[in-house]
Amino acid sequence: MKNIKLTIEYDGTNYCGWQKQKNGVSIEETVENALIKVLKEDIKIIGAGRTDAGVHAKGQVANFFTETGIPDDRIALAVNSLLPPDIVILKSEGVPMDFHSRYKAIGKRYSYSIINRRMPSAIMKNFYAHVPYDLNFEDMKSCIDCFLGTHDFSAFKSTGGCAMTSIRTINYVNLFKDEDIIRFYIEGNGFLYNMVRIIAGTLIDVGRGKINPQAVPNIIESKDRKLAGITAPAKGLCLEKVYY
Amino acid sequence: MKNIKLTIEYDGTNYCGWQKQKNGVSIEETVENALIKVLKEDIKIIGAGRTDAGVHAKGQVANFFTETGIPDDRIALAVNSLLPPDIVILKSEGVPMDFHSRYKAIGKRYSYSIINRRMPSAIMKNFYAHVPYDLNFEDMKSCIDCFLGTHDFSAFKSTGGCAMTSIRTINYVNLFKDEDIIRFYIEGNGFLYNMVRIIAGTLIDVGRGKINPQAVPNIIESKDRKLAGITAPAKGLCLEKVYY
Repeated sequence: MKNIKLTIEYDGTNYCGWQKQKNGVSIEETVENALIKVLKEDIKIIGAGRTDAGVHAKGQVANFFTETGIPDDRIALAVNSLLPPDIVILKSEGVPMDFHSRYKAIGKRYSYSIINRRMPSAIMKNFYAHVPYDLNFEDMKSCIDCFLGTHDFSAFKSTGGCAMTSIRTINYVNLFKDEDIIRFYIEGNGFLYNMVRIIAGTLIDVGRGKINPQAVPNIIESKDRKLAGITAPAKGLCLEKVYY
Repeated sequence: MKNIKLTIEYDGTNYCGWQKQKNGVSIEETVENALIKVLKEDIKIIGAGRTDAGVHAKGQVANFFTETGIPDDRIALAVNSLLPPDIVILKSEGVPMDFHSRYKAIGKRYSYSIINRRMPSAIMKNFYAHVPYDLNFEDMKSCIDCFLGTHDFSAFKSTGGCAMTSIRTINYVNLFKDEDIIRFYIEGNGFLYNMVRIIAGTLIDVGRGKINPQAVPNIIESKDRKLAGITAPAKGLCLEKVYY
């Protein structure tokens, strides 16, 4: 028996999310079914975390146990040949038996991408939130640092999550602009349900002038979801990396 | 009667190309049909140039004549509401009656995008050529300048074009690398059939070590298609801009 870690990239557009659901096809079951075909064993994969419908990943992680004789690093190629082109196993590698993609994760990095121009994008339509209003980038940038550190992020979570506590530690944030593209990066030890999308939505509302950038620390402190901004669309969100 | 210039972005993945064809749906007819519905007139659009099946555009240009009372700059929004999301009119504007998107064009800018890593991309699969072999970026970069200037580009055209001459002038080339993405830009007064894709394919063959970078000027001079590299896949190509 060996424990295999997969690093997975996917375009989440056509899936109901990572996790198996009654309605719609999930990334999890698609990868699992391809593994079952390749390895001819009953495989259960453990994902590092769920991503919602329409959310993408460049570095989702999952692990599973197998008896296969296929060399660890060849499993990726074999499985890719059976996966649809919007899911790609970037890497397969053997890891210690006690590696658990969810419990051993110490942090995650997400990006949130916005295209800020009058017309939507034909080319990047599934990977960027389209914001047709003028966004003040300097105002947005001026308030990102207040998300750093350890806070109760209750103002930035949707109902429906099952976390025991709303306290999380954020250790990296950044915001970049390249012509009409704005991209936000955030790294932390964990994220509440919809947390990155609500932070991104709050930054969008700051950019539009609907939220004063100086009010953002107070919004965090308030723990009141109603004071934070919109939940930005799923398609702008990408799970970039899981840290162990 | 007025003459309207359209600037058009499209994801060419699901189309048979710009031009109307017996088999498959073209960008041209899709835009034309939307215009006919919005303007309630029999509209014929004139494109600045054809793009092949799977080729994208961020700045294709077309023009057409109309009697409509809809303000020039509002036509884009009205037509976008009827277009599929993979075609977006970025701008509609009134131009002098003698403006002709093809005959008045003085130059075009294309990009060619490559993802250079072992595994293909799930997220950018329709917009990048996937090259799984190691590419030597410095070798590729070292030979791009020899495409500059006025040359007979017969070695870099496919049969099937209907150009009177194979002489073209290239006034800008550049090659960028950002992690596993390599992007080539080229600007000139015109391009032969498949010319950018064959230049991109030649650069890929240089990067792989199949063509010596110092041989590229001789390949241009030879006018022999067999000496140039592969025709790189359509999906990496994007018409960035048409100059007037």
